[in-house]
Amino acid sequence: MQPTPPPTRKDLALAEHVPPGARELAIGGIAAEELAGRFGTPLYVFAAEILRRTLARVRAALGPRVRVLYALKANPNAALARVLRLAGAGAEIASAGEIHVARAAGFAGADMHFAGPGKNHEDFALATATGLGTLNLESEAEYTALAAFARAKGARPGVAVRVNPKDAMAGSRMKMGGGSKKFGVDEPELLPLLRRIRREDVCTLRGLHVYAGTQSFDAAAWAANAGHLVDLANGLERDLGAPLASLNFGGGFGVASFEGDPDFDLERAGAGLQDRIARDARPDRTYWVELGRYLTAPAGVYLTRVVYAKTSQGKRHLILDGGMHQHGAAAGLGSVIRRAFPMVPAREPWRTGAERYTCGGPLCTPADEFAADLLLPELHAGDLLAILVSGAYGLTFSNTMFLSHPAPAEVLVDGGQAWVVRERGRPEDALRGQRLP
Amino acid sequence: MQPTPPPTRKDLALAEHVPPGARELAIGGIAAEELAGRFGTPLYVFAAEILRRTLARVRAALGPRVRVLYALKANPNAALARVLRLAGAGAEIASAGEIHVARAAGFAGADMHFAGPGKNHEDFALATATGLGTLNLESEAEYTALAAFARAKGARPGVAVRVNPKDAMAGSRMKMGGGSKKFGVDEPELLPLLRRIRREDVCTLRGLHVYAGTQSFDAAAWAANAGHLVDLANGLERDLGAPLASLNFGGGFGVASFEGDPDFDLERAGAGLQDRIARDARPDRTYWVELGRYLTAPAGVYLTRVVYAKTSQGKRHLILDGGMHQHGAAAGLGSVIRRAFPMVPAREPWRTGAERYTCGGPLCTPADEFAADLLLPELHAGDLLAILVSGAYGLTFSNTMFLSHPAPAEVLVDGGQAWVVRERGRPEDALRGQRLP
Repeated sequence: MQPTPPPTRKDLALAEHVPPGARELAIGGIAAEELAGRFGTPLYVFAAEILRRTLARVRAALGPRVRVLYALKANPNAALARVLRLAGAGAEIASAGEIHVARAAGFAGADMHFAGPGKNHEDFALATATGLGTLNLESEAEYTALAAFARAKGARPGVAVRVNPKDAMAGSRMKMGGGSKKFGVDEPELLPLLRRIRREDVCTLRGLHVYAGTQSFDAAAWAANAGHLVDLANGLERDLGAPLASLNFGGGFGVASFEGDPDFDLERAGAGLQDRIARDARPDRTYWVELGRYLTAPAGVYLTRVVYAKTSQGKRHLILDGGMHQHGAAAGLGSVIRRAFPMVPAREPWRTGAERYTCGGPLCTPADEFAADLLLPELHAGDLLAILVSGAYGLTFSNTMFLSHPAPAEVLVDGGQAWVVRERGRPEDALRGQRLP
Repeated sequence: MQPTPPPTRKDLALAEHVPPGARELAIGGIAAEELAGRFGTPLYVFAAEILRRTLARVRAALGPRVRVLYALKANPNAALARVLRLAGAGAEIASAGEIHVARAAGFAGADMHFAGPGKNHEDFALATATGLGTLNLESEAEYTALAAFARAKGARPGVAVRVNPKDAMAGSRMKMGGGSKKFGVDEPELLPLLRRIRREDVCTLRGLHVYAGTQSFDAAAWAANAGHLVDLANGLERDLGAPLASLNFGGGFGVASFEGDPDFDLERAGAGLQDRIARDARPDRTYWVELGRYLTAPAGVYLTRVVYAKTSQGKRHLILDGGMHQHGAAAGLGSVIRRAFPMVPAREPWRTGAERYTCGGPLCTPADEFAADLLLPELHAGDLLAILVSGAYGLTFSNTMFLSHPAPAEVLVDGGQAWVVRERGRPEDALRGQRLP
């Protein structure tokens, strides 16, 4: 007897959107063809139910002591952020623009945490006007600027200090701590800065923040890293003689998008963190985890139609109406290694087919390519394709102005209904903000 | 006696913007500090005089028989495009959005050439309404769609067929022809398609187009490639029994942005092309070259201020108000090899200094970095830096929505005066087009 092969990444991603026995891709229960017909293509579609289910699973794994922040940078769509807020998330924001989005999504200022190494005067002003809960300070220079702002305006911001940990997080794809970094404050500099914040008494010191890396696939390393922050905070508290009551462990839970990607063991990371928090025995503390990609990636699908099918030197090409300018990550923008996102036809998405296709968009550059040599059934102009795992770093990671094409619409599907949550752009948008002398 | 070292790329780029003996960077004769003070940072500034001088040099090199098209994709700013139009350029466009920009810049439809592998019904409609001169067909499927459109609407578009040449252009950094490609029509398929266009007689057949690659640094190879198109056209004319009176050689003249880049020998490419055209002895023919980056890159400077200076583990970091979301190419977006654009302080830009700085923007990602270990004089918060050779594929190649920061302003300097030609964005723009259910 042949052993059953393990499911592929594509199988797992498809299982989110194709009920057993169904022949068509559906998002939140509505057929992809119906959505494309009603709203046009290219189109991003997000399933509210998957957002809620993912957040619920994360909250269950992390336990009742950990609050989850949604990192809006992954998908700054206010409707999607609102779904996560109503399901219990706070907001992690990274710019004044994201404060506007978080406000539109209904987040209270107190539930917002603001990180980013270049926060300026206008950012401080909007944060203060919003009653923002915690600014994560990335340098002593930023604290100096914030303190001057607070004194001048009579404001009293809540702050946490972001730690640049001595060691990089093992197993993460993009290191954001360890070594010399633009993020956070080196460990030896923490105590002097914390003492200064206490002494000057213009900001309310809430605690510490760390964000060591993204796309971590090693749950044990992730939990150990979080434990390091607890140890560090406890040591600093003793020297400081004051509580560090808010500990933000960052995020970076890996999302498997590509064949060969391992799974991030959420339950193991959560159990490790819960165990460490139990041993911390500090009912006065609040613990935070901030997640973007992990919460939204599985909920999103990018739909694009074939404009032309052509054959060149015996190889088949599909020219799509979508492209790298709308889904840069799926075209390898920003990646050193170009790897294909799971891409399937909307009809009979399980079928592999016998034809090899190169699939790319309408841009005048060979970089505008989603897949080379993808096995698909015979496809023609007008057929609909879907790129899965597209709910994070999709539209807003893309070079949307490149070649001046209109932006795609975005649709949220919830409870069997679909709403446009970002309007489709128009070709005239290329002139937006332009003036002639 | 020591030999004088050859000028570096930075020296050559600086010479465009710093008159001999001057101590400050100036763009079009206005000090960078004055521009930054008046218009704020981050800021793109374009010098009209450099645009005109570059176009004049190209036209002189190519001779009176060759018409130059400005490829708007390099910088779809209408004010900048208008400068090039008034200096004698036509327009090469790649989307309906670019037609709108070209119209705003005052180009007549007849002076526009439209390429791109995914042109659709709406593109055909806008092109027809604009009286667009030539659509470069990228596939027989596209011709079929255009012919159906023309029949239905009673329009008669002018068309050229884009050739996918048998061989890739030697010496170009990004191949866009040769092998199996989404661009153009394979050579063996040309004659059947040309015959079909003539036979069906719904489009006016103008000639051929080729675009074999970008960032070519081999002038002789470029001219040989252009010669191949002439030979191909002459052979096809004999078989077709009809003239191919318009030959578009594409562009791709290399712009040296990085240390170690060779210079593209414009005069050699021009002489080779002029010689081939003279031997062609076809006064009825029109020859075209389309250039984007080559015309606009040297004219643009990106200005950004230091928000914070910090030291981490003994290394110095400058956090800037600009970043990869506004100048992605300078942060390595879309490049396999990350190489630094020339970056200088606005005051005493020739001075190298003894400090090594890592320079990056305000985004929460280590990818937001313009330079690592750049030798600069001692710099502080508020100091102004300039990234040179930034007039092409700057703002519009960037992932401008990433982290929801406002877009920078763009300024055109001409005759000692400065005009805002793209308004600065606002943080609220993050909500543009968004709707809540």
